[in-house]
Amino acid sequence: MSEPVSDEVRVRRVPDRASYDRQVIDDIADAGLVAHVATIRDNTPVIVPMFCVRDGDHLLLHGAPAAGVLRRAGAEGASICVEMTLLDGIVLARSSFHHSMNYRSLVVIGVPEEVTDPAEKEQALEAFVERLVPGRQADLRPTTGKEIQGTAVFRLSLEKASAKVRTGPPVDDEEDYELDIWAGVLPVGHTVGSPIDDPRLRDGLMPPDNVLQLVTD
Amino acid sequence: MSEPVSDEVRVRRVPDRASYDRQVIDDIADAGLVAHVATIRDNTPVIVPMFCVRDGDHLLLHGAPAAGVLRRAGAEGASICVEMTLLDGIVLARSSFHHSMNYRSLVVIGVPEEVTDPAEKEQALEAFVERLVPGRQADLRPTTGKEIQGTAVFRLSLEKASAKVRTGPPVDDEEDYELDIWAGVLPVGHTVGSPIDDPRLRDGLMPPDNVLQLVTD
Repeated sequence: MSEPVSDEVRVRRVPDRASYDRQVIDDIADAGLVAHVATIRDNTPVIVPMFCVRDGDHLLLHGAPAAGVLRRAGAEGASICVEMTLLDGIVLARSSFHHSMNYRSLVVIGVPEEVTDPAEKEQALEAFVERLVPGRQADLRPTTGKEIQGTAVFRLSLEKASAKVRTGPPVDDEEDYELDIWAGVLPVGHTVGSPIDDPRLRDGLMPPDNVLQLVTD
Repeated sequence: MSEPVSDEVRVRRVPDRASYDRQVIDDIADAGLVAHVATIRDNTPVIVPMFCVRDGDHLLLHGAPAAGVLRRAGAEGASICVEMTLLDGIVLARSSFHHSMNYRSLVVIGVPEEVTDPAEKEQALEAFVERLVPGRQADLRPTTGKEIQGTAVFRLSLEKASAKVRTGPPVDDEEDYELDIWAGVLPVGHTVGSPIDDPRLRDGLMPPDNVLQLVTD
């Protein structure tokens, strides 16, 4: 098992589920869409859910909800915490005590840095659209300078990050394996349903292939 | 629109998506499994994902990861933040700027209170199992006094809570509705797959109906 670069992100409970491997961390960041972003306001932690994409060694965060809280943290040199969790299964054991969940989670701590260069900002905003639907940016009305100016973009280094992963069957007390109780895992997954047309869609327009490819049904 | 009981949970961005209605808040809490729990450690916010169930006017949190952080917050009278988010759809607009997500999210702020009465703790632990599989507690090996003693359980009042909900199609700039660009929503859902037997399951045991009923495929 690798070691964390900083004690701030050391996994304290069930450390054998921890990983500080960048590949593991990147895979979780790339699989999730919603990040939970914590800052401190008046001595109280406050979490805001935000759309998050990874760009190399950074997470990117953006938008109006990000602007105030992240700009303040960045200006004060205050660390924020970004966490993402993917639920993979419900672990049903033979005792209530050993019930659990299979999951992949990620915690990143650091000071957010505002992206101010317009070209870099435009690239970042493109990364958000492309994360949702690869290839979609080219189909869109071009982003205007005013829109780029009006959106706050922040990056957070993945340097201080840790992952935690649980997989596999329940782990029961040894004597409980003999009981006549069914135990196992209920896998949890995500679906993307058929696209729902905007009610104001122009007649005759069909969802493009890059959108249809995401449908899992 | 109702008003928040405390400014701490007032929704600041896009306040027309906010709700302080207990029914809306309860519905989100009851639909989610994973809560994101933020505390402050050495002046830095830290988020830990935890399984969370609602019990009337409180959220219940438990387990080893909860013990240290929540006990410390409770003892110090320090507020924590619990957030849950359910992703319902990817909102594809005609410009990158108006891309969005449909979601239901919940934020609760308060001082966690440790549940110490053994009978109340047992009831709480039962609530966790019953949330995963209604009816399962009766099928299990009974919880022991040692297990009840060894699990920390906390409750957090729903008094200071807010919800934020986005639904519906993209909202584009008026002139963009004339463009030949497909726009709409990709609905996102969850699936529960067929149960996977524990490899150490006794021969001949089948998943019970209360487990099979959860399968969505």
